[in-house]
Amino acid sequence: MEKNKKVILDCDPGHDDAMAIILAASGISNLKIEAITTVAGNVEVEKNTLNALKVCDILGLEDIPVAEGAERPMVKEREIAEAIHGDSGLDGPILPEVPEKQIVETHAVDLIIEKIMESDGDITLVPTGPLTNIAMAMVKNPAIVPKIKEIVLMGGGTFGNWTPAAEFNIYVDAEAAKVVFESGVPIAMFGLDVTHQAVATDSVTKELDGIGNPVSGFVVELLEFFAKTYKEVFGFDGAPIHDACTVAYLMDESIFDMRHVRVDIETKGEFAYGMTAVDTLAVTGREPNVNFAYSLDADKFWELFRKALTSYSD
Amino acid sequence: MEKNKKVILDCDPGHDDAMAIILAASGISNLKIEAITTVAGNVEVEKNTLNALKVCDILGLEDIPVAEGAERPMVKEREIAEAIHGDSGLDGPILPEVPEKQIVETHAVDLIIEKIMESDGDITLVPTGPLTNIAMAMVKNPAIVPKIKEIVLMGGGTFGNWTPAAEFNIYVDAEAAKVVFESGVPIAMFGLDVTHQAVATDSVTKELDGIGNPVSGFVVELLEFFAKTYKEVFGFDGAPIHDACTVAYLMDESIFDMRHVRVDIETKGEFAYGMTAVDTLAVTGREPNVNFAYSLDADKFWELFRKALTSYSD
Amino acid sequence: MEKNKKVILDCDPGHDDAMAIILAASGISNLKIEAITTVAGNVEVEKNTLNALKVCDILGLEDIPVAEGAERPMVKEREIAEAIHGDSGLDGPILPEVPEKQIVETHAVDLIIEKIMESDGDITLVPTGPLTNIAMAMVKNPAIVPKIKEIVLMGGGTFGNWTPAAEFNIYVDAEAAKVVFESGVPIAMFGLDVTHQAVATDSVTKELDGIGNPVSGFVVELLEFFAKTYKEVFGFDGAPIHDACTVAYLMDESIFDMRHVRVDIETKGEFAYGMTAVDTLAVTGREPNVNFAYSLDADKFWELFRKALTSYSD
Amino acid sequence: MEKNKKVILDCDPGHDDAMAIILAASGISNLKIEAITTVAGNVEVEKNTLNALKVCDILGLEDIPVAEGAERPMVKEREIAEAIHGDSGLDGPILPEVPEKQIVETHAVDLIIEKIMESDGDITLVPTGPLTNIAMAMVKNPAIVPKIKEIVLMGGGTFGNWTPAAEFNIYVDAEAAKVVFESGVPIAMFGLDVTHQAVATDSVTKELDGIGNPVSGFVVELLEFFAKTYKEVFGFDGAPIHDACTVAYLMDESIFDMRHVRVDIETKGEFAYGMTAVDTLAVTGREPNVNFAYSLDADKFWELFRKALTSYSD
Ligand SMILES: [Ca+2]
Ligand SMILES: [Ca+2]
Ligand SMILES: [Ca+2]
Ligand SMILES: [Ca+2]
Repeated sequence: MEKNKKVILDCDPGHDDAMAIILAASGISNLKIEAITTVAGNVEVEKNTLNALKVCDILGLEDIPVAEGAERPMVKEREIAEAIHGDSGLDGPILPEVPEKQIVETHAVDLIIEKIMESDGDITLVPTGPLTNIAMAMVKNPAIVPKIKEIVLMGGGTFGNWTPAAEFNIYVDAEAAKVVFESGVPIAMFGLDVTHQAVATDSVTKELDGIGNPVSGFVVELLEFFAKTYKEVFGFDGAPIHDACTVAYLMDESIFDMRHVRVDIETKGEFAYGMTAVDTLAVTGREPNVNFAYSLDADKFWELFRKALTSYSD
Repeated sequence: MEKNKKVILDCDPGHDDAMAIILAASGISNLKIEAITTVAGNVEVEKNTLNALKVCDILGLEDIPVAEGAERPMVKEREIAEAIHGDSGLDGPILPEVPEKQIVETHAVDLIIEKIMESDGDITLVPTGPLTNIAMAMVKNPAIVPKIKEIVLMGGGTFGNWTPAAEFNIYVDAEAAKVVFESGVPIAMFGLDVTHQAVATDSVTKELDGIGNPVSGFVVELLEFFAKTYKEVFGFDGAPIHDACTVAYLMDESIFDMRHVRVDIETKGEFAYGMTAVDTLAVTGREPNVNFAYSLDADKFWELFRKALTSYSD
Repeated sequence: MEKNKKVILDCDPGHDDAMAIILAASGISNLKIEAITTVAGNVEVEKNTLNALKVCDILGLEDIPVAEGAERPMVKEREIAEAIHGDSGLDGPILPEVPEKQIVETHAVDLIIEKIMESDGDITLVPTGPLTNIAMAMVKNPAIVPKIKEIVLMGGGTFGNWTPAAEFNIYVDAEAAKVVFESGVPIAMFGLDVTHQAVATDSVTKELDGIGNPVSGFVVELLEFFAKTYKEVFGFDGAPIHDACTVAYLMDESIFDMRHVRVDIETKGEFAYGMTAVDTLAVTGREPNVNFAYSLDADKFWELFRKALTSYSD
Repeated sequence: MEKNKKVILDCDPGHDDAMAIILAASGISNLKIEAITTVAGNVEVEKNTLNALKVCDILGLEDIPVAEGAERPMVKEREIAEAIHGDSGLDGPILPEVPEKQIVETHAVDLIIEKIMESDGDITLVPTGPLTNIAMAMVKNPAIVPKIKEIVLMGGGTFGNWTPAAEFNIYVDAEAAKVVFESGVPIAMFGLDVTHQAVATDSVTKELDGIGNPVSGFVVELLEFFAKTYKEVFGFDGAPIHDACTVAYLMDESIFDMRHVRVDIETKGEFAYGMTAVDTLAVTGREPNVNFAYSLDADKFWELFRKALTSYSD
């Protein structure tokens, strides 16, 4: 497959972040991964960085630079989500304690700025954690804003999972989200509405397990742990693979139904901090700024995944 | 049918408010209407009062006191919703300009206080407009709070219709809603999640039209106008009869699926003012304060309605 | 002295509220007290009502109706200030446990509405507690708004005493304050800037003690207790007689320097809830809505007080 | 004078910023200027950078690195204050269009991080503009926080000048201010309470004019323009030299009366955004985090200034 779409994966791996990377780096992917950058989110940034490096080791991604980013949100205190991803941020599979791969010295914020400024305006940012790195880059060097091709992100939704109003990624750094959503850069948003349709049920996991290569084995171990915590914390049958929706969209848009709508970020509320106010009914009169994913074709989604994992058998 | 459940209908009629009254006053109803009180909402309170009186005239409700209430919200500026209900607040049917029935002299806030204080704690309040009257009564005389049996209200939801975050009734007076939701009185809440399942489709309207008495004829004219504006403003096929859900619940609980959850009212946000933050996933750890309706059996709902309208043929 | 200015004193006595009543009812006063209404504030409304009745007993005000008002703020939870006024709300003087005088049956909110609606637009409201009653009256019957001559109130300032940003009266019910300040009624505002200049120093108290009638004796006992708590809580030498500034202004405007400015009420902030944002430098471009007292002539103020207390010797 | 206090001047020159630099670089100063960094504030950051470079040219500061910083606040939209400082940000004196001195390539945020990380914890930050650079540095590399000796800043106060509640520097980027004030770094704060006591009256300006060297001539031209706009915009007689208070404090603490108090930053309010809530009366019970300057000895302040300018005659 020709790698003709340049992306930077900005993430906090994270089970579903890992699966996004696996999809993006697979033999059937059209994405050229320019860099992987990490951010505090599910767990502390140091742990997320280790996880990113270990995933690269497993996938053999020697040449892709990994840069560590923000340890804390732009304005508010740090919050983490160990209940969901375990103490390491990627509990489940047994991984070597120390990865082979090393991070680059550049800070994630600066690597994003460098890559964008050196580009021909053809890089898509794919954030699957809090938006701190992206917003920090925009504030530090606003000249990147018109040069970002698109931001394809996991976050938000018309309902929440961390509070009744807010999804975790946006809640952790709503101020960063505000900067990004008001930047004018084209945004494709994969929120809980759609990611809750990307559930790895038992039968999905069983089918993937049949592929029988090391990467599919790794994925099955991820899914089993993730399903367990989703059962315990939220009472779900099967875990939603939130973050992988972003990469799936870049590989095959036809999996998703999208709608162009206004989305605003609440940073002031008493109960609604971190809400993405999605103007589904077009009642605000405000200019649409987001391409919002509201549903997906689950069969197509898992078929893509199956093919991607199979490609690692070669 | 024995009338053994005492209710006060606090409303801003309003097509769907009117249908709530019609249901409550029907031959198959178990509700004893202690009073009808009006509030500014869909249109100005004076218009809502006229509409309430005219509906009473049509239904022959000579003995039920109608009292006029708040002209404005407790704290914020007044907003009205003429786009939905027409200039009169009850456009569609041709009605006499001046009703026969007169209002009582008592202010709605005082009538609510009187009725509750004189009761044995057996009166249920049924607000189907902004919650201004109810909250004003609670602030003016907090002694009513422990004597209110239940508040069965239409308002809010996990999404909005007036803004992306807020439903109209709550948005118009979120401060009043905050007072009510924090009062400790048992609340049954019928928000957009469930009321958008109570849609009068063409086939429903046609069936009701077949009943062929004056009240059913009035209802059909209401539904036709209401469906037209819902089509124009929101692109809906058929109008949701929001307010009637409250009365339907009091007549037959089995129509609805309910869940006991925490609901908080956002009064501070930049984009989320008037949101009802419904803790569906039980992530807040806050004490449940609301019996929240999340779905209804549409066949049962319309069957109840059909029977209620048929009872007016006698 | 001809009593030609009609006032309603709306208060939460309170040492300085008591002194406002004493001034207003004195032989040198031009004020006709139409009613005294009470509100929850320094302590619970029941205690404030008892205190108001006892002050009336001491002053012989048999004919002035006293009505009890709001027990709680319009929207937020109740807070009280026992640290300042003692457990009874009027600690210091030894008073009979039960007053002779009785309250009228009408609720304060309704008495205010009645008096204003029956008037020729010549009644001035003088609130020296939280603004709950006044705002509730405006919301219950907006027709009073254009008939109120003026509101001469104690509250707010360019700095706070209950929080760094907010003065107690406004903080207790900022939503009520917002209603009042946005009502369009002319407002004369006596905030901490000016009331902190109305300090009863030791030498003031000693001079008043020399007057030697029962009322001056009562005042001296009030001042001694009040000075003690101001010393303990705020480290002040002498207590500021905040509330009496309102009545002093109505008796002799020349005591005060006033400026016409914009004042807005903060109801949303994290640290500034209850702030009166006084546009001293005229930087907002918003229409002035308040006649703001920024200084007083302390000699003239205490001279007025001395004469008022002396008038009780007759 | 031995230069034994290391400082980084983070500024938006700005008439009073220029005077802070002049004071810090004078012959009588004990400050070792490690760097000058610029930020968007009074005018766009590009203009502020040019002004900083030109001031360095005038003072002969070839060796001090000047780095350009943030073009916009962390979260909200950019606002500028041309009305106060003129179109160039430093109107008044006639300056060459292009400065001799050049900026370093490093971004101000990174230069601050580098200098702090390489230091022995002995560098004081002196921000006299919005706090964007400082907060961005803290978020990008939290490891600097415990290594900053102190932050001596101009901003805030118990009243505002840009809104009734907020001073300009804090208002422009209240989110950045929140990060800084909550960081735990010792802060000395020079707000409007004290800087409005540092007024260059006509007689002050005349005295400085008598010194008769190029730098004093430059200062007099700055003061004349600045006094003119303060007269026009705020009606002041003479301009307050806000920013120079920070440097004066570092050169001679005895000029100022300081108090250790709690200061919180309001980022949520409707009218109070950007307020510094100064807990003067110690009513919050929150831990003091700021050494707050509440008054200065004006004679001493101007005497220091006179000596500093005279030192440029050598
Ligand atoms: Ca993630
Ligand atoms: Ca209604
Ligand atoms: Ca008082
Ligand atoms: Ca400055």
